Amino acid sequence: METLLSHINSPADLKKLTLDELPRLAQELREFIIDIVSTKEGHLGASLGVVELTIALHYVFDTPNDKLIWDVGHQAYGHKILTGRKEIFDTNRQLGGISGFPKRSESVYDDFGTGHSSTAISAILGMAMASKLKGDTDRQHVAVVGDASIASGMAFEGLNHLGVTNVNALIILNDNAIGIDPSVGALKKYLTNVKAGTAKDENIFECLNLNYSGPMEGHDVKTLVGELERLKKVSGPKLLHIITTKGKGLKKAEEDQVVYHAPGKFDKRTGERIKKSNGAEPPKYQDVFGHTLVELAEKNNKIVGITPAMPTGSSLKFMMDKMPDRAFDVGIAEQHAVTLAAGMATQGLIPFCNIYSTFLQRAYDQVIHDVALQKLPVIFCLDRAGLVGQDGPTHHGVFDIAYLRCIPNMVVFAPMNEMELRNIMYTAQLGLDGPIAIRYPRGRGVNLDWRNKFERIEIGTARCLKEGSKLAILSIGHLGNEVEDLIGALDKPEEVGHFDMRFVKPLDKSTLRTIFEKHEQIITLEDGCKMGGFGSAVLEFANEEGFSKPVKIFGVPDRFVEHGTIPETQKLAGMDFDALFSYIQSTP
Amino acid sequence: METLLSHINSPADLKKLTLDELPRLAQELREFIIDIVSTKEGHLGASLGVVELTIALHYVFDTPNDKLIWDVGHQAYGHKILTGRKEIFDTNRQLGGISGFPKRSESVYDDFGTGHSSTAISAILGMAMASKLKGDTDRQHVAVVGDASIASGMAFEGLNHLGVTNVNALIILNDNAIGIDPSVGALKKYLTNVKAGTAKDENIFECLNLNYSGPMEGHDVKTLVGELERLKKVSGPKLLHIITTKGKGLKKAEEDQVVYHAPGKFDKRTGERIKKSNGAEPPKYQDVFGHTLVELAEKNNKIVGITPAMPTGSSLKFMMDKMPDRAFDVGIAEQHAVTLAAGMATQGLIPFCNIYSTFLQRAYDQVIHDVALQKLPVIFCLDRAGLVGQDGPTHHGVFDIAYLRCIPNMVVFAPMNEMELRNIMYTAQLGLDGPIAIRYPRGRGVNLDWRNKFERIEIGTARCLKEGSKLAILSIGHLGNEVEDLIGALDKPEEVGHFDMRFVKPLDKSTLRTIFEKHEQIITLEDGCKMGGFGSAVLEFANEEGFSKPVKIFGVPDRFVEHGTIPETQKLAGMDFDALFSYIQSTP
Repeated sequence: METLLSHINSPADLKKLTLDELPRLAQELREFIIDIVSTKEGHLGASLGVVELTIALHYVFDTPNDKLIWDVGHQAYGHKILTGRKEIFDTNRQLGGISGFPKRSESVYDDFGTGHSSTAISAILGMAMASKLKGDTDRQHVAVVGDASIASGMAFEGLNHLGVTNVNALIILNDNAIGIDPSVGALKKYLTNVKAGTAKDENIFECLNLNYSGPMEGHDVKTLVGELERLKKVSGPKLLHIITTKGKGLKKAEEDQVVYHAPGKFDKRTGERIKKSNGAEPPKYQDVFGHTLVELAEKNNKIVGITPAMPTGSSLKFMMDKMPDRAFDVGIAEQHAVTLAAGMATQGLIPFCNIYSTFLQRAYDQVIHDVALQKLPVIFCLDRAGLVGQDGPTHHGVFDIAYLRCIPNMVVFAPMNEMELRNIMYTAQLGLDGPIAIRYPRGRGVNLDWRNKFERIEIGTARCLKEGSKLAILSIGHLGNEVEDLIGALDKPEEVGHFDMRFVKPLDKSTLRTIFEKHEQIITLEDGCKMGGFGSAVLEFANEEGFSKPVKIFGVPDRFVEHGTIPETQKLAGMDFDALFSYIQSTP
Repeated sequence: METLLSHINSPADLKKLTLDELPRLAQELREFIIDIVSTKEGHLGASLGVVELTIALHYVFDTPNDKLIWDVGHQAYGHKILTGRKEIFDTNRQLGGISGFPKRSESVYDDFGTGHSSTAISAILGMAMASKLKGDTDRQHVAVVGDASIASGMAFEGLNHLGVTNVNALIILNDNAIGIDPSVGALKKYLTNVKAGTAKDENIFECLNLNYSGPMEGHDVKTLVGELERLKKVSGPKLLHIITTKGKGLKKAEEDQVVYHAPGKFDKRTGERIKKSNGAEPPKYQDVFGHTLVELAEKNNKIVGITPAMPTGSSLKFMMDKMPDRAFDVGIAEQHAVTLAAGMATQGLIPFCNIYSTFLQRAYDQVIHDVALQKLPVIFCLDRAGLVGQDGPTHHGVFDIAYLRCIPNMVVFAPMNEMELRNIMYTAQLGLDGPIAIRYPRGRGVNLDWRNKFERIEIGTARCLKEGSKLAILSIGHLGNEVEDLIGALDKPEEVGHFDMRFVKPLDKSTLRTIFEKHEQIITLEDGCKMGGFGSAVLEFANEEGFSKPVKIFGVPDRFVEHGTIPETQKLAGMDFDALFSYIQSTP
């Protein structure tokens, strides 16, 4: 039988369907998403949960004239499929393919690029205020925000402003009680009460002067259409609270919502995940962090762990499971996470605050003002530092070296491998007189046998991994692992030395002096932006000490790097093995 | 008559007073604050508003064993006076004197350094969780937070976490309906309803699972003591809502709360402000911004203005008064302000988003993720960039050059004077293909006659102000004004050239090439951190282009600079006129 979906290439096509056909379309759309994501991978659960909402929105509203923002953007697959990208949906997250997130340059239907959470209310309010100023009084403005995302401070700031405006804006609170991990916090508890009917009369959103409706079932597409039609006629700022199930329609995904947020390949009928291989492989850095933290915390009772909403992704969950009173998921609240850690550190605790590099951007002021200025020994573990691959430019963690090394009192370290990560974590919890940031990449390490005995690392010391006579490669972090192979492949390997510099700050000036004295040329290599990064720090050193040898800096150039696999994005950035190799080979 | 205050050098002394003596002490403390601040200057209104609360807190709680945090810290003068700093209170905000804010290194009674708003809930929760882990079950933890501050996203994140803990923490909401400027937003409106008794049954803080009490009058010290004694025995997280009057006890300060936030010198009896001089002086940069924006907005109806809670300080108020539908104070919500601007820019508006340099740290992620990544032409005007003087290390805006220039698509500009500021604002609103950050300092410009006719500035072009033969000084921003005098005072002025580089990004590479070719040595000068700053960008350029001439970088060294006057702090940083002069004189 021919599907309804096969005829839909735009919201105009969708609007030709009768109301009664929409449930069937929902079923087809869900199957289409499952079909593609089961083989091409991607974020599954969130999009399955909003299939009905997606259809209802494009059915009721006049997109793209009306504005529609998907907060975080994990849930926008259905939206992409209904707005002209059905045929290329199988290129999702691939190099040159469509983005896994809404993206303005990709489609006029993507009104605002998302990726980081909790931006949609501010952005839609900006659009609605613009419409008002321009006299576009009929234009509608809708933002879909999850319950985990709306609990973040930025979303509250948006609501606080929205409530005193009289713009045409509808916030749809998509309440599934889960972000990537289950939602936490007082607001989540409150929403649970609302859904159970045990909350009192006044509503928290009404306190903020919003026209509240709900909670209503979010998988009945016909009811949703009716409610959206009604709200379209209500002027002023309003909030519709709908209840959905993440992973809706795929049993396995409903049952294990955390895993099926982005399950990798799976059997589209059974939902069973397809294991990649049974061969032994090195551990993920996040797991090295997670296991090592437990190991250290068992011996040092001052250690606590903090994550803003990434217990699974950071593997802090290992500690949360073993020591629930000492490891905390604070929700999507990076700012709070950092200052909470600062407060704990004033009382002698040793907080490991694990935040993805790209999300620490959310707490930059807190790192400077609450931690570094007060020299508090908070240990920041920055996962997903460097190019992260398929999540693309919203998620690459490439700025941290530049934005952290300018902060006084900060120590910035990048481990080359699992042992280095373990040793710096061990070192940090022995006691530092200020904060440290430990940045490590997405993905796996390089050693099968990685549970080494701890060794203390002297702060500000580099490692010489290979002596050379003419050229010195100074690497920072995991890219150092490629250098050994690289040198082996060169015509004159004896001429090239390799130093794992480890500390972006403080620099190992003594080793640097030796390096600059001995070699004719220096190459620096970092998985981060070149502008203001590690290479730049080496230039500052050389200039201050009067060295004038040429320095070639490899790192992420001054542009946003698109999505693709990690090796592909490294190639895009001109910092892959081949680029390095041909540069060195062609150097006289 | 001998005062009660003269016997009080610590909370222990305070506790010797009877309850009935406390109102008299409050009167004396108020007079003491007025007495000193009237001649020494400082933040007046906030401290006057919490005199009774300050006394009650130290009377009831066992500080410093119990923990006490003053959010923002503007209101902590009474606290400082009662906790051993009475005799040195007249050194407030002076070089070598006490800080205008709570500061951990200054006193054991200052449990957490503040300055930026809305950090106190997170910090006190960290301390309370630490006490719980350590088994200090009797310890109390109190944070005093204003109503403007509690509306900021970070505070909400703290409350959202606090509500699901069972720690001993008391948040005192000091509701005076004003921050520096009057409070705004839906929460403010709600609190007004609560105070008027027109709010419904359930309370927004109860929605967040906090034990709420209030609202109660905050100037009756005996009642406050009673309520605090009661709350001390209530376990778990709680919030006390008190109503106070900013500037309480000084008629003028109560009447004009914005001006008397920090009124400068005034007559302590009448409250009348003492005008500094009647001589003509150059305008404040903030006023050049404010007037110029109105001038431009009158001709370009796409222009809108946004400030997060600094209408007076930024002088956006000029536009808010003239065009209230196009200029917006969004409250202490920097994150929201930036993404709101981004949303507006997508619809073709031209947003001028004015944020103090130090506070843009709060919206770093939004600048990267919502603005720069999408190449949206938001115009950031960063006031108070560089060393700001008496507010000290929490407020110095010295990191912006480093943290902004690493962001792709950003243009970073620093005007040397009023005309340059006007011209770049004019240029920016003509239309750019991405964002621009315009950073200018606290304080006054250099020209009495500053209302020049607008001229367009070519993006990425420097100005040669003086040719030289041997040494080139490359300045960025207002410090360039000192260079002319400096060169005039040198033994061989003809040898020294001066270039106002204007753009940190993109660099004027063509001019830089000429400079490097022609001169033997380069000096860079910036009012910002040296690490990763403008000088560092020049080094990157020189390295990339193969120039190996020595570059001497003047700027803020890699440490937090204490408070003092702006010239004093510049001297502390080694970037004052004398330092520059003696360096050049001693250069061969």
